[in-house]
Amino acid sequence: MHLYTQSASPNGQRVEVFMKEKGVELSMTQVDIRSGENLGDDFLAKNPFGRVPTLELDDGTYLSESQAICRLLEGLYPEPNLFGATPQELAVIEMWSRRVEMNFMMSVAQCFRNSTGFFKDRERCSAEWGEIAGEAARDAAARLDAHLANNQYLVGDRYSVADMTLAIAVGFARNVGQDYFDLPNLARFHGEVTARPAFQS
Amino acid sequence: MHLYTQSASPNGQRVEVFMKEKGVELSMTQVDIRSGENLGDDFLAKNPFGRVPTLELDDGTYLSESQAICRLLEGLYPEPNLFGATPQELAVIEMWSRRVEMNFMMSVAQCFRNSTGFFKDRERCSAEWGEIAGEAARDAAARLDAHLANNQYLVGDRYSVADMTLAIAVGFARNVGQDYFDLPNLARFHGEVTARPAFQS
Repeated sequence: MHLYTQSASPNGQRVEVFMKEKGVELSMTQVDIRSGENLGDDFLAKNPFGRVPTLELDDGTYLSESQAICRLLEGLYPEPNLFGATPQELAVIEMWSRRVEMNFMMSVAQCFRNSTGFFKDRERCSAEWGEIAGEAARDAAARLDAHLANNQYLVGDRYSVADMTLAIAVGFARNVGQDYFDLPNLARFHGEVTARPAFQS
Repeated sequence: MHLYTQSASPNGQRVEVFMKEKGVELSMTQVDIRSGENLGDDFLAKNPFGRVPTLELDDGTYLSESQAICRLLEGLYPEPNLFGATPQELAVIEMWSRRVEMNFMMSVAQCFRNSTGFFKDRERCSAEWGEIAGEAARDAAARLDAHLANNQYLVGDRYSVADMTLAIAVGFARNVGQDYFDLPNLARFHGEVTARPAFQS
């Protein structure tokens, strides 16, 4: 297997931290998103949606979407379990992963892209939507903070892929000027998760 | 188990079609989203993110997010398999589910909500973003249509939960004035999937 990625991106980080949690190493090629290499014909042949990371499998097919790549690695390298071991645990971890991604991380990304025009060479931006998405991200962060007041991790004391995603999203948000460290439980959680060996470079 | 849902919503439909594919029946309560019942204290105690469907489990806890509810049902009622049977199949189906949800369905929903102001009593809208989201939905639909030119379903001839979501999203889009039936492969796909017994009321 061979990973096409951009290690500086939050989705790139998700796959690399997951690999470290599993003790898996993969050969990698960095894709230059800033210059739009991911939108060129060579890369679109690997992923018609133009996103990194994308994993080339041993049968020559390509697998995209960070969470799908992590789920493949979970199946191939079952220990330590990060997606859940029983039907109920698998479902609850999926629920938290989706709350983190769709309510928080996606709002952070839409705020960033629309407010800063970081990708304005390739996408239309709306400053108004950037502001609305920022409010949605803040709202989701507050709900996550309230939950973490009574839970070490998103699923009680059970560390999972959802925690990894949230910690990376909170760090990414800070890097792009959206600071959620005033929320004490989220700040405590971020410190604890990013102290794990898998988060060290 | 008891399902709190809104059967007319696309996410409500996803869980109910999935139940029919599995031959599972659940008792249900309809939640009146239009009047904001999902944002009242009673419902927020079940799901602090205020979304339907939400499933009450036999242990008294609540599980939200359609895909997480479907994944629980997959674990409890394994046949017919809709999420994948091997690590690679689980991952590829997850990839397509996410492409459908995040690139297409979410753009359709953001276009609908921002263009029509359907929920303007409870959320800020941006007509400009409604237009941009509509363009993103069209772009994603075209990529899906191109893939379906050479594939019966999203994962070759292997019907999965990702197909169910796409067919429901395409139907929802048409209901809210976003018509993708000019894309021939997507139209063929929609007709074939919605002819399944699980899609009949």
